[in-house]
Amino acid sequence: MNNKQIAEFKAGDEIQSFFILRALNIKTSSNNKKYLDMTLADKTGEINAKLWNIENGEENTFQTGQLVKVRGTVTLWQNSLQFKITKLRLTEEEDQVDVVDYVPSAPYSAEEMYEEVMSFVNRIVNNDVKNIVAKIYDMYKEPLMTAPAAKSNHHAVRSGLLYHMLRMLRSAEVLCGVYQNLNPDLVYAGVLLHDIEKINEMNSDDLGIVSEYTFDGQMLGHIIMGVKTIERVALEVGADHETSMLLQHMVLTHHYEPEYGSPKKPMIPEAEMLHYLDMIDARMYDMCRVYDQMDEGDFSDPVFVLDRRRLYKSSMHKE
Amino acid sequence: MNNKQIAEFKAGDEIQSFFILRALNIKTSSNNKKYLDMTLADKTGEINAKLWNIENGEENTFQTGQLVKVRGTVTLWQNSLQFKITKLRLTEEEDQVDVVDYVPSAPYSAEEMYEEVMSFVNRIVNNDVKNIVAKIYDMYKEPLMTAPAAKSNHHAVRSGLLYHMLRMLRSAEVLCGVYQNLNPDLVYAGVLLHDIEKINEMNSDDLGIVSEYTFDGQMLGHIIMGVKTIERVALEVGADHETSMLLQHMVLTHHYEPEYGSPKKPMIPEAEMLHYLDMIDARMYDMCRVYDQMDEGDFSDPVFVLDRRRLYKSSMHKE
Amino acid sequence: MNNKQIAEFKAGDEIQSFFILRALNIKTSSNNKKYLDMTLADKTGEINAKLWNIENGEENTFQTGQLVKVRGTVTLWQNSLQFKITKLRLTEEEDQVDVVDYVPSAPYSAEEMYEEVMSFVNRIVNNDVKNIVAKIYDMYKEPLMTAPAAKSNHHAVRSGLLYHMLRMLRSAEVLCGVYQNLNPDLVYAGVLLHDIEKINEMNSDDLGIVSEYTFDGQMLGHIIMGVKTIERVALEVGADHETSMLLQHMVLTHHYEPEYGSPKKPMIPEAEMLHYLDMIDARMYDMCRVYDQMDEGDFSDPVFVLDRRRLYKSSMHKE
Amino acid sequence: MNNKQIAEFKAGDEIQSFFILRALNIKTSSNNKKYLDMTLADKTGEINAKLWNIENGEENTFQTGQLVKVRGTVTLWQNSLQFKITKLRLTEEEDQVDVVDYVPSAPYSAEEMYEEVMSFVNRIVNNDVKNIVAKIYDMYKEPLMTAPAAKSNHHAVRSGLLYHMLRMLRSAEVLCGVYQNLNPDLVYAGVLLHDIEKINEMNSDDLGIVSEYTFDGQMLGHIIMGVKTIERVALEVGADHETSMLLQHMVLTHHYEPEYGSPKKPMIPEAEMLHYLDMIDARMYDMCRVYDQMDEGDFSDPVFVLDRRRLYKSSMHKE
Amino acid sequence: MNNKQIAEFKAGDEIQSFFILRALNIKTSSNNKKYLDMTLADKTGEINAKLWNIENGEENTFQTGQLVKVRGTVTLWQNSLQFKITKLRLTEEEDQVDVVDYVPSAPYSAEEMYEEVMSFVNRIVNNDVKNIVAKIYDMYKEPLMTAPAAKSNHHAVRSGLLYHMLRMLRSAEVLCGVYQNLNPDLVYAGVLLHDIEKINEMNSDDLGIVSEYTFDGQMLGHIIMGVKTIERVALEVGADHETSMLLQHMVLTHHYEPEYGSPKKPMIPEAEMLHYLDMIDARMYDMCRVYDQMDEGDFSDPVFVLDRRRLYKSSMHKE
Amino acid sequence: MNNKQIAEFKAGDEIQSFFILRALNIKTSSNNKKYLDMTLADKTGEINAKLWNIENGEENTFQTGQLVKVRGTVTLWQNSLQFKITKLRLTEEEDQVDVVDYVPSAPYSAEEMYEEVMSFVNRIVNNDVKNIVAKIYDMYKEPLMTAPAAKSNHHAVRSGLLYHMLRMLRSAEVLCGVYQNLNPDLVYAGVLLHDIEKINEMNSDDLGIVSEYTFDGQMLGHIIMGVKTIERVALEVGADHETSMLLQHMVLTHHYEPEYGSPKKPMIPEAEMLHYLDMIDARMYDMCRVYDQMDEGDFSDPVFVLDRRRLYKSSMHKE
Repeated sequence: MNNKQIAEFKAGDEIQSFFILRALNIKTSSNNKKYLDMTLADKTGEINAKLWNIENGEENTFQTGQLVKVRGTVTLWQNSLQFKITKLRLTEEEDQVDVVDYVPSAPYSAEEMYEEVMSFVNRIVNNDVKNIVAKIYDMYKEPLMTAPAAKSNHHAVRSGLLYHMLRMLRSAEVLCGVYQNLNPDLVYAGVLLHDIEKINEMNSDDLGIVSEYTFDGQMLGHIIMGVKTIERVALEVGADHETSMLLQHMVLTHHYEPEYGSPKKPMIPEAEMLHYLDMIDARMYDMCRVYDQMDEGDFSDPVFVLDRRRLYKSSMHKE
Repeated sequence: MNNKQIAEFKAGDEIQSFFILRALNIKTSSNNKKYLDMTLADKTGEINAKLWNIENGEENTFQTGQLVKVRGTVTLWQNSLQFKITKLRLTEEEDQVDVVDYVPSAPYSAEEMYEEVMSFVNRIVNNDVKNIVAKIYDMYKEPLMTAPAAKSNHHAVRSGLLYHMLRMLRSAEVLCGVYQNLNPDLVYAGVLLHDIEKINEMNSDDLGIVSEYTFDGQMLGHIIMGVKTIERVALEVGADHETSMLLQHMVLTHHYEPEYGSPKKPMIPEAEMLHYLDMIDARMYDMCRVYDQMDEGDFSDPVFVLDRRRLYKSSMHKE
Repeated sequence: MNNKQIAEFKAGDEIQSFFILRALNIKTSSNNKKYLDMTLADKTGEINAKLWNIENGEENTFQTGQLVKVRGTVTLWQNSLQFKITKLRLTEEEDQVDVVDYVPSAPYSAEEMYEEVMSFVNRIVNNDVKNIVAKIYDMYKEPLMTAPAAKSNHHAVRSGLLYHMLRMLRSAEVLCGVYQNLNPDLVYAGVLLHDIEKINEMNSDDLGIVSEYTFDGQMLGHIIMGVKTIERVALEVGADHETSMLLQHMVLTHHYEPEYGSPKKPMIPEAEMLHYLDMIDARMYDMCRVYDQMDEGDFSDPVFVLDRRRLYKSSMHKE
Repeated sequence: MNNKQIAEFKAGDEIQSFFILRALNIKTSSNNKKYLDMTLADKTGEINAKLWNIENGEENTFQTGQLVKVRGTVTLWQNSLQFKITKLRLTEEEDQVDVVDYVPSAPYSAEEMYEEVMSFVNRIVNNDVKNIVAKIYDMYKEPLMTAPAAKSNHHAVRSGLLYHMLRMLRSAEVLCGVYQNLNPDLVYAGVLLHDIEKINEMNSDDLGIVSEYTFDGQMLGHIIMGVKTIERVALEVGADHETSMLLQHMVLTHHYEPEYGSPKKPMIPEAEMLHYLDMIDARMYDMCRVYDQMDEGDFSDPVFVLDRRRLYKSSMHKE
Repeated sequence: MNNKQIAEFKAGDEIQSFFILRALNIKTSSNNKKYLDMTLADKTGEINAKLWNIENGEENTFQTGQLVKVRGTVTLWQNSLQFKITKLRLTEEEDQVDVVDYVPSAPYSAEEMYEEVMSFVNRIVNNDVKNIVAKIYDMYKEPLMTAPAAKSNHHAVRSGLLYHMLRMLRSAEVLCGVYQNLNPDLVYAGVLLHDIEKINEMNSDDLGIVSEYTFDGQMLGHIIMGVKTIERVALEVGADHETSMLLQHMVLTHHYEPEYGSPKKPMIPEAEMLHYLDMIDARMYDMCRVYDQMDEGDFSDPVFVLDRRRLYKSSMHKE
Repeated sequence: MNNKQIAEFKAGDEIQSFFILRALNIKTSSNNKKYLDMTLADKTGEINAKLWNIENGEENTFQTGQLVKVRGTVTLWQNSLQFKITKLRLTEEEDQVDVVDYVPSAPYSAEEMYEEVMSFVNRIVNNDVKNIVAKIYDMYKEPLMTAPAAKSNHHAVRSGLLYHMLRMLRSAEVLCGVYQNLNPDLVYAGVLLHDIEKINEMNSDDLGIVSEYTFDGQMLGHIIMGVKTIERVALEVGADHETSMLLQHMVLTHHYEPEYGSPKKPMIPEAEMLHYLDMIDARMYDMCRVYDQMDEGDFSDPVFVLDRRRLYKSSMHKE
């Protein structure tokens, strides 16, 4: 009986530990008994789990998003690991566990990141730009603390959106030093606003887990939603029309290619730079995630989000 | 000395007639004399014209958009016709000419078309939809009377935008009869709103001539501008959120392909139909315009706006 | 024991009803007994079914396309429903059931549709056009009554081809009213001929079920086959060469894009319109089919034939 | 005064020689005098030529396609050579010149090539295949003697079509030796028929000069026309249906890519080989034509028909 | 009990025969017993095989690449055949079997093919070209005898690389007869070198079975590796720079399209021809392989390596 | 008489100043007199110039690349400015002008830039990496001082290659601070080597002006040439194989897309970052160059190297 994390599970392991209930279905087996078909998760991954032959009503005890205590055995079924559960209960106060410790999260605390991100807002010189950004950040502070940057793929972790913007802001700052033709106000504002409507494009709970795209997210997408938010807030704070349009243009063009959602291409250098800042951060994140599961000297399998490329982890790689 | 229209000009013609001054440049010839390099236009076309050796100050008499009386000779220079002007003056009241008669226009009067278009607005049953459309049409009535639907290409004529929407509405009406799965309210509103922000995407004068794209037009384009206008007006009239979003979605998706400006594809049948109504009207317009200049039994040159296709005008064609 | 339709089946249901035998394989189980692996169908869908441990020779009793009476239980196996059969027999006269009631069919009777379609043939004014179309419809009347328009996807139902053309003809009629530059003779003939060789491109039985593409269908496809048929029939009825070529051109170009099978693009407005009539009818059909299985307020899964788009069914949708 | 060929013309040359009149326009100069604007050609190229200040009626003496005797001077105008003519007359019998010597032609006589091509027809073993090909070659013998394979580009010379097929047949013969899985009957027939309808796709005179595409050529193209011809002739000679279809399939698929005119791709190895035989011959022809104008050690300009590639002519090149 | 080859296996067969062990995994079943999950192969194909309930240590007896003697039963599991093994041992001397008879191989012996290939090397006239090729063939003789031309797909058999080049050389020889503008030295050398670094791009054992791509193969690929090898060897044999570059250019460009690995396109006719020789040989090989498994009159399933085309095997096909 | 720079020329200006002779052709006018057709350049641009009616032999006095003293008049011919020269002579010692002041150059001196670039070489920790880079920089020091980074477009100025690498190194340094998963040794080496063979891909004189691509440049391109140079130098300095391959891989993949010359995509994060560093520097350079010629509030014309986008120069732009 041990408390391994999911990434380390092997067939035959006897496990007793805490997990998040990510998905839950009640099904009926061939012998006509109800059973629970679940997805359990911790910081390191997910696994399919079954609790066979449940009592009537037992299925109503549990809801997705809860932290549960589980005992069971890891088995191999059709080449995949499966977790056969023998005991399952909700966590209780005396367990002294915090659900947040069981979800994948950004490497810094949301509070730290928020503070650093806000320091960039405060560094914006142009008043119209600052007012627009500050008002939006004021509106969205609460969801921003936990929002992921995606349903799956890059930065799909708790507070992933803050983390994505934080690293882009740091890069923006140093590159504005190298490329002095750039107006840092615009670059910072572009970073701060480009994905802000991901908060309303996806329904995520306070564990940073996205259950689905929202109605607005499906019908318009976060780019168009972001343009509309800037328009509205700029009118509210009485910002100059050109300034508002520059920010809307930066959000509209940051995916660059029409087939990725940008119907116009960047017409100012700050919008061009925003696109590359975004690409770099997403790619570095995804590559690190793949490297984490590789041994030195190996090639990975083709990685979907990296255009099906394989990665190589050389002896010169850095952690 | 005759008053042929431009489309009929031949080298050697002596012309005396009225034309619109579409473009005007003051240049200096190799013998160091100032001259006027102009584009003159009437309903049938355009021609380059020169007035040599002008007096100092004479160039300030004229502005683009004015109707002028011209006397001169048509010559051939490097395989193109050119109009060598000997007399040029502004029209005066006693000439009894109206500038509107000298610009290409839709085949119906703006007033007639506006009335028929508004009858569709009034036929909308859903109050939210009707209020949004009615309010926007109220705001834009004046520019709508003359606005063209393009800078060049399809419906680039005075009141061309009204004409484009009118024909689409007529098609929408009859196709809603065939495809009863469609909600006519949405289809009519989609047609009425899909290109409405072309009014603010291009600067056109009251002759329906576009001088250039606007700042907003270049930075966002009429599709995104249209989405924002619906958002704003829907809030103003207190429309239901889903209704507002459906209309925004229809405008956003009506170009269908990302590379033509639509970052999302239609998710409701009414948006799908809107796209085809738009394509059909544009293509019929452009094909008729090419046919007008062809003889029966001939193939046209490759036509740029028709993907460089040639057209064939058979003995079975209809006028 | 009930007689639910397939679309309503749930695990655990005890069913006794009639179904079409769409596919039939004799297999041997791991305990070396023969069993029947079948696909059963009704108007609402299909389901995999097993009849275990059959007697020698019993498998020869049944053939695909037959209507059978079945008793059995619905079970869940690897997340799919399966129909475990306990009794299976052919229908008999006293069952008083008609196989046609058990296959998906167009919403009107073939006879009604045929009559309306033929009324368009009769409305064609040009004699050459009318003779060509009339002769082809005379040749193909019988298979036309049941032919589907596809193996799967749009109008893949009994008499689906007639239904597809009928709706296109109705649209053609009303759009020729809006776009008077179109010659209705050509548009009607284009609709009537564009897919006519689907009859010979696919082998379909008189239930409108396609078993496979034909040799000619695979080697040339219905577009090229259609061009050849018009050529031959035009010579037989002594039609004018230009007329024959215009009809061949319309059929050749109706898929518009080379990668969808049209090596030339439309050079006459009637061919252009034919393409859009075809697209509209296919898309409306496919969208309605998806809507039928959706609840209001939901998004569908990505739909393969709609370029993997999701649909949304709003509160404003129409049945 | 010399008789240089056009490819050798330099500014300042005084020329007296024979040329083909490829194009002829009557124009009016700025001093209101008529003049002839011509294109003259010989085996080596073309040049623009002017005969100034012609007498009334003189322009009616000449027609395109005629061989004329010319005296004049080569000049440079706007970086292009131009031929200023002082004397121009039709050739007469005593000039003892043959128009055929003045047009670009295949390197062998049409008669020789025809004989060798027909020897391949005779080598076909399968009677149906042989009968189809033989009948078509019988029908088209006369135009085949002079027809070019294109309006411009590869094999756009007198008897170029015969030359194209001849080289493909020679390659076909030797490659059928290497790839014994191929049926030579099908490969030969494929070569012999693949471009045969170019004869009717373009109007060419007996100098092998194409004036324009035909009506059928524009509306359907030589591939579809070829499929129809095989269909018709196969019925006339009573050939087996499968055989006829294989030949039609080969012609239909020989351009391979939909965007180059083939709506289906090869489904038999002989059709696959036909495509490569065609590509090889076209590319070798075009490359040799470019090499002819290059010096050793040089790179060419980008060549349009070779996807805008430059060629390099090394010291190892062969003539 | 019989000794059928894998291609002929049917559910229920009792088999006793020799097979190559292509893959081997030790797994644990649901009842916690170890078992072997293997891929067995012979000249005709591969099959999944299981040996249940093995003794501890038994799994160490076997290694991939070995020839084993097997007894067992063919079963059907989830629509695939599976081989349930009851006895398994390594072959012994007295079995008198040779592993080479159990792997798919080129149709000629490596020695015969090598000799014919080398005769082309010897026929090269230019000393620099010959020295470069001869030296590389001297270096790579040993691996060349068994190397396949691919991991899967065309010529993925023992000595497949030699076979691929041999057929290309034969075609090259005869086409240089038809196209005398080609320098045979360059064409032969191009064929001999174009894929030579496949030897180092993939790790293959002496059965011609590729286990994986090499590090260099993944990082650069055989095209770039080939360019580097020619560069190095050309310097070693003191070849002329232009000559070395022409050979490097041919290798670099032989895949033609950038997306298939060629960053430049052919600039000399010999490189153009090399591309087509390569395509023809690959396509003929792949088509024959599909034909081998088809019956006359049938269409194949879509074939992945042939762009998902189906093939048709007519009554006129040749073996 | 003034000494304006070319960018400020207006028709009618009388100019006396120094210019670089960028191109020179001797031509013959219509009155059969020789004249010089030249391109003159200074730091600000280029202009076409004519010296009419030269004496025999005068044309031999001048060579491209020389600095000349010119007197003449600016005229307008067919909408372009032209420089009609009346006096032309070579510069002499007493003119006290330096040719370098008349060519567009990087904004820093080559020496300064070289020193900073070399400081990055010295900062490389891994000995193999450092040895490879140091040796190559030792070999190429001289041409590196003046080499441009392109024939036209980005960094096509004297010492442009050094400038391009310098800015990329500065960005690399700061981004390695943000993305600590990157090995700075590899990123620096990647930047230092990625374009190094542009030195041998283009023939440039010591003014940094490219006359043409070299033979090797055309046949292979700087990417493949760079891979070969690293291979050779790595062997010479005895570097580890994996290290050499990583550097070759970075150079090979830095254009990212096959159609831009990279047959493989990045498999390590440092190669991915190299691509973005390259893109950012090229785009910032090109955008600044366009901005330099724009007024605030204006849109540019479509810019070819920026995918034909227009730029907008707002009131918030920075110099």
